[in-house]
Amino acid sequence: MTREDVTDLIYSAKVQKGLKWADVAKKLKLSKEWTTAACMGQMTLTKAQALVIGKTFDLPAEAVALLQVVPYKGSLRSSVPTDPLIYRWYEIVSVYGTTIKELIHEEFGDGIMSAIDFSMDIKREPDPKGDRVNVVLSGKFLPYKSY
Amino acid sequence: MTREDVTDLIYSAKVQKGLKWADVAKKLKLSKEWTTAACMGQMTLTKAQALVIGKTFDLPAEAVALLQVVPYKGSLRSSVPTDPLIYRWYEIVSVYGTTIKELIHEEFGDGIMSAIDFSMDIKREPDPKGDRVNVVLSGKFLPYKSY
Amino acid sequence: MTREDVTDLIYSAKVQKGLKWADVAKKLKLSKEWTTAACMGQMTLTKAQALVIGKTFDLPAEAVALLQVVPYKGSLRSSVPTDPLIYRWYEIVSVYGTTIKELIHEEFGDGIMSAIDFSMDIKREPDPKGDRVNVVLSGKFLPYKSY
Amino acid sequence: MTREDVTDLIYSAKVQKGLKWADVAKKLKLSKEWTTAACMGQMTLTKAQALVIGKTFDLPAEAVALLQVVPYKGSLRSSVPTDPLIYRWYEIVSVYGTTIKELIHEEFGDGIMSAIDFSMDIKREPDPKGDRVNVVLSGKFLPYKSY
Amino acid sequence: MTREDVTDLIYSAKVQKGLKWADVAKKLKLSKEWTTAACMGQMTLTKAQALVIGKTFDLPAEAVALLQVVPYKGSLRSSVPTDPLIYRWYEIVSVYGTTIKELIHEEFGDGIMSAIDFSMDIKREPDPKGDRVNVVLSGKFLPYKSY
Amino acid sequence: MTREDVTDLIYSAKVQKGLKWADVAKKLKLSKEWTTAACMGQMTLTKAQALVIGKTFDLPAEAVALLQVVPYKGSLRSSVPTDPLIYRWYEIVSVYGTTIKELIHEEFGDGIMSAIDFSMDIKREPDPKGDRVNVVLSGKFLPYKSY
Amino acid sequence: MTREDVTDLIYSAKVQKGLKWADVAKKLKLSKEWTTAACMGQMTLTKAQALVIGKTFDLPAEAVALLQVVPYKGSLRSSVPTDPLIYRWYEIVSVYGTTIKELIHEEFGDGIMSAIDFSMDIKREPDPKGDRVNVVLSGKFLPYKSY
Amino acid sequence: MTREDVTDLIYSAKVQKGLKWADVAKKLKLSKEWTTAACMGQMTLTKAQALVIGKTFDLPAEAVALLQVVPYKGSLRSSVPTDPLIYRWYEIVSVYGTTIKELIHEEFGDGIMSAIDFSMDIKREPDPKGDRVNVVLSGKFLPYKSY
Amino acid sequence: MTREDVTDLIYSAKVQKGLKWADVAKKLKLSKEWTTAACMGQMTLTKAQALVIGKTFDLPAEAVALLQVVPYKGSLRSSVPTDPLIYRWYEIVSVYGTTIKELIHEEFGDGIMSAIDFSMDIKREPDPKGDRVNVVLSGKFLPYKSY
Amino acid sequence: MTREDVTDLIYSAKVQKGLKWADVAKKLKLSKEWTTAACMGQMTLTKAQALVIGKTFDLPAEAVALLQVVPYKGSLRSSVPTDPLIYRWYEIVSVYGTTIKELIHEEFGDGIMSAIDFSMDIKREPDPKGDRVNVVLSGKFLPYKSY
Repeated sequence: MTREDVTDLIYSAKVQKGLKWADVAKKLKLSKEWTTAACMGQMTLTKAQALVIGKTFDLPAEAVALLQVVPYKGSLRSSVPTDPLIYRWYEIVSVYGTTIKELIHEEFGDGIMSAIDFSMDIKREPDPKGDRVNVVLSGKFLPYKSY
Repeated sequence: MTREDVTDLIYSAKVQKGLKWADVAKKLKLSKEWTTAACMGQMTLTKAQALVIGKTFDLPAEAVALLQVVPYKGSLRSSVPTDPLIYRWYEIVSVYGTTIKELIHEEFGDGIMSAIDFSMDIKREPDPKGDRVNVVLSGKFLPYKSY
Repeated sequence: MTREDVTDLIYSAKVQKGLKWADVAKKLKLSKEWTTAACMGQMTLTKAQALVIGKTFDLPAEAVALLQVVPYKGSLRSSVPTDPLIYRWYEIVSVYGTTIKELIHEEFGDGIMSAIDFSMDIKREPDPKGDRVNVVLSGKFLPYKSY
Repeated sequence: MTREDVTDLIYSAKVQKGLKWADVAKKLKLSKEWTTAACMGQMTLTKAQALVIGKTFDLPAEAVALLQVVPYKGSLRSSVPTDPLIYRWYEIVSVYGTTIKELIHEEFGDGIMSAIDFSMDIKREPDPKGDRVNVVLSGKFLPYKSY
Repeated sequence: MTREDVTDLIYSAKVQKGLKWADVAKKLKLSKEWTTAACMGQMTLTKAQALVIGKTFDLPAEAVALLQVVPYKGSLRSSVPTDPLIYRWYEIVSVYGTTIKELIHEEFGDGIMSAIDFSMDIKREPDPKGDRVNVVLSGKFLPYKSY
Repeated sequence: MTREDVTDLIYSAKVQKGLKWADVAKKLKLSKEWTTAACMGQMTLTKAQALVIGKTFDLPAEAVALLQVVPYKGSLRSSVPTDPLIYRWYEIVSVYGTTIKELIHEEFGDGIMSAIDFSMDIKREPDPKGDRVNVVLSGKFLPYKSY
Repeated sequence: MTREDVTDLIYSAKVQKGLKWADVAKKLKLSKEWTTAACMGQMTLTKAQALVIGKTFDLPAEAVALLQVVPYKGSLRSSVPTDPLIYRWYEIVSVYGTTIKELIHEEFGDGIMSAIDFSMDIKREPDPKGDRVNVVLSGKFLPYKSY
Repeated sequence: MTREDVTDLIYSAKVQKGLKWADVAKKLKLSKEWTTAACMGQMTLTKAQALVIGKTFDLPAEAVALLQVVPYKGSLRSSVPTDPLIYRWYEIVSVYGTTIKELIHEEFGDGIMSAIDFSMDIKREPDPKGDRVNVVLSGKFLPYKSY
Repeated sequence: MTREDVTDLIYSAKVQKGLKWADVAKKLKLSKEWTTAACMGQMTLTKAQALVIGKTFDLPAEAVALLQVVPYKGSLRSSVPTDPLIYRWYEIVSVYGTTIKELIHEEFGDGIMSAIDFSMDIKREPDPKGDRVNVVLSGKFLPYKSY
Repeated sequence: MTREDVTDLIYSAKVQKGLKWADVAKKLKLSKEWTTAACMGQMTLTKAQALVIGKTFDLPAEAVALLQVVPYKGSLRSSVPTDPLIYRWYEIVSVYGTTIKELIHEEFGDGIMSAIDFSMDIKREPDPKGDRVNVVLSGKFLPYKSY
């Protein structure tokens, strides 16, 4: 059994049971973003968290153990994603990449926005012209220094 | 002269003159995000906007004309970006891509978050443990429908 | 079981039963284009639609549940398709891509033709020199705006 | 001078003169689709057509000669296009590719829709919910035969 | 069961039975080239042809049904083939590609040599300096036209 | 000056002078296929041949010298060609590759058809249903031996 | 069962039995280089040779039959090999490729060194500064000719 | 000026002067293999060697200085070489790669054959059936050790 | 059973048993770095070492035999790694690659730092601003020589 | 002028003047590692640092300005480097990647070793069996946290 198998088990159980990620998150008392990423095989759970997930999705003990191991990360099947929803995000990086780079450097100098000390919040933004997806990304700025 | 040449002219003038994107944006009375993307060759300017940019960066008439033509978009040099700052965004799509997909579908059903009817706001988020980059993305949800 | 497995089950049942996509579409009271895309694992079905498909192709309950989940889209095996029929479409994008771009921008300005708020109609166009395939694509124009 | 140089000369002249492809097409008495493709370096012109284009865009004699030579076709910069408008077409092929294949084969049997004996018509489709891009593709069906 | 599985079944049976493609072709009363391509999963058989192949290779009914479905074509494992015999053909396209293009255009004008309305004949050409492989390719010329 | 520059010089002169490859071949007293390949930068000329080509296309002495040097071969811009005429040949290799392999091995055993001790003849094959391109390829069979 | 499966069976049996390739070669009365290549799925065996290999590695009859079929060649997992030993050979081709090309052409004129009419001999070359791997490659020179 | 420019200068001068690599090697009192590799931009020359090369090919002082700098190595244009002579070497690595690996490990254990402490000797091997290219590669064996 | 299967068996047993690599290394009396690499399928074990590993992880005899065979090395799933921790190392090579090259050449001349006669030591470096990962790499310098 | 042009100017001047990176570093009073990376176009200089570099290498004012702008990072020409020295580092990541991942996670838990808050020290390690390259990498550990 590999961590990918655990992801498949969770996903299959979720579909059969009709669960929502938001409800799973409440059981973990964590955000739905982190919870979903963990269930999709991208984050590492503590023993307590793994037991909650195991119970929620009826996982065997081996799967519960694997949830506590740091996974090999990367959730896409190809370097340019084919799924339209995920591709739009890749397109944002493609079109706005140099813009993001310029503006962060203008504000902070040379460095990066961390993807590790990082959080994300996805929510519905009601709009009379059609509701919008509102996403807030927050990442610590890490400066390059000379040495 | 191509649009890439115009981008190079703008960038070179910006460096030599020591201008800031935020100041250029004020001249256009638009956000710094859209302004930077336009100057980096990703957006189309109106004649009035192009004249402002042309004056700001001392561009020749041919360049001002090209700023009003829809460009071939895509600002990166390779499908997986090598620049660390831009790579972190690509990594977010790689690690969180399926998470983003799951949560938007859970809230909205099948469809995408538009990268066209879209805006972005990048700002500094002061934090005692080290300031953070805070980015708000807002894109209209576009549902798939059966027909 | 994954959505790819469901697609294989449907395809195999269709071949063994000698069904036509047009007939399946009639059972769903939808176009043959959308119906086929859904059965090939690219669209999401409602519960009612999934039950019809499940009955038509003798699918197990787990498969019927998976048909109601938004799939990871993208139906081709490689970024440049090898199948001659599908390649001809890729070739049209390759040869006419910049033409399509120029003409849509000339008529509408900067923006895109949506691939989400989109429909397709494929039919036979009788012609004494050999019948033709006639395809009508209709996608909402989505403009880029400055902000 | 290469055909790519001719395309650049035409494009640059078009922008400086503020011409429209539809008007250029009228001078050639051909569709705007074929005319644009020819000017973008994808089609071969007769001597008479090349002289019209040469006069319209003030091209040198060498360029007029090159317009009459069959070009090396393919108008995109990479196998997966980065421009959002052109990408949406690539996405249609990616998502609907197997659907298109199934439905053409169901109607016609094994074979392809020609991309050579082919025409395209792009027009605006007014719609109260937002105008649509309407594209009609017509390609001769070419059957595979056993031998 | 997929068409690839059918190809594997045929190939395995051929090896175990020690059959020759030329003999299989005689049973179908077709060329050995088309017959081999069909058995390798690249062509579509009629019901009568599929029954002959099914009997020849002891295929189950499901395989016989799949032989009558248009397959997803493309018989190689990678875009640049690794097998030396097949690579030599790829090399011919690589080295002589522009030559072939020039000479067909010189004779016929703009257009292509069809790979659909196409036949191939492979035979031994005795030669005192070592026998040669003689291949005749015949494809209908399809002209591009303006519209 | 590189061999690619020589190819460009030849090609440009050919277009401006309105020469045909078949006529150039007559001057060399060789086939039009080899002549074209040599002019497109894929074959090596003797001094006498290079002088004929140099005179025909008004080449400078440096170019005539480069024609006598073995070139770095490969005439295509990408591993999968984008030009429709050349792609059809690549498609033949893709669809019929394993067929060609099977039939040559059935006739000759393990080995290859040489792409070096090789010749090609391209001609028009009149046909009431539309003329055909007829290509004869002849390559020495080279057997693998055990040692 | 495929030829890859036969390779796996041979490899697994070799490890369990602790056999050496040199000893297997002695049974075939052939070089260890050709023998190893054949066992690794790259060469075709005669019936007699296949029976020896089958007995040596306890292979089933189906495997012995497959050893006599010409395999699809190419023993590496990716176009740039990751294994350090094999990579060094790829590096030699990368660094010395143009050197090899220049020197063979200087000695022989335009043509290639055959990889088919080819043999290889790998042996230990004792050296007080550390033993060396000595490899002799011998391939027939095949000249390009004009026609 | 870059090292690539120096390689072009050397190559162009060699063609115009009609020099042979073997003669250049004699001036350096080194093998023709190392000399050619150095001139093709893959090796580093001492000051004395660079002066000899500079005089032989009439190079400017800047070029002579660059010859003494360690170059960025790699002489091929793509990861899979298109030139038939060089491709045959790549094919040898592809077909015999695992064989080479097995036999070196059988003789020496885990480790590699060095591509740095390495020499190559290319010569003509007369043969009544057609002369052969004989290449001797000698590389120090470097063992992996546990630590 | 392949070496990849052995790696999976070891990894699974390690997770179920809650072992640490450092403890496994102590049993082998070797560094934790070499031990982990060997268990991850990158190094070759002696019989004695393989027996210790087999006992530690309850491996079957076939697995113990495979541990003593030189593996096909390369532990990543794609040429650009997707896992953030491993990517950071790839990024170091991307950003600092030419720097490392310049400084090693400045100190040692032309040659390489061996990745075979190589060791690595990873440890925690306490730091009040947050602990650091300290890695010491030591590789023998191997000079290129002329010959 | 672009930052790549500045790198070329610096590199060319360094070669012509015979400077050493270690000496340049002393002028900046920084490590030779950071200094070289900055000169190779990977780091951002302060105004004071840029003036020192400009004076050292006789750079024009425009180049001195560009040195103070954050560059687009990534110093290699392809995703898998061809230069043998740099490749060995890529190989270390390929072979030891999963080992590094396992050991850092065992010591620190889930997170990464920063490539931003990072320093490198390259030095000669004398050794009677041949001197070694000793490299110390130090990067802050950044933990993933749940949120």
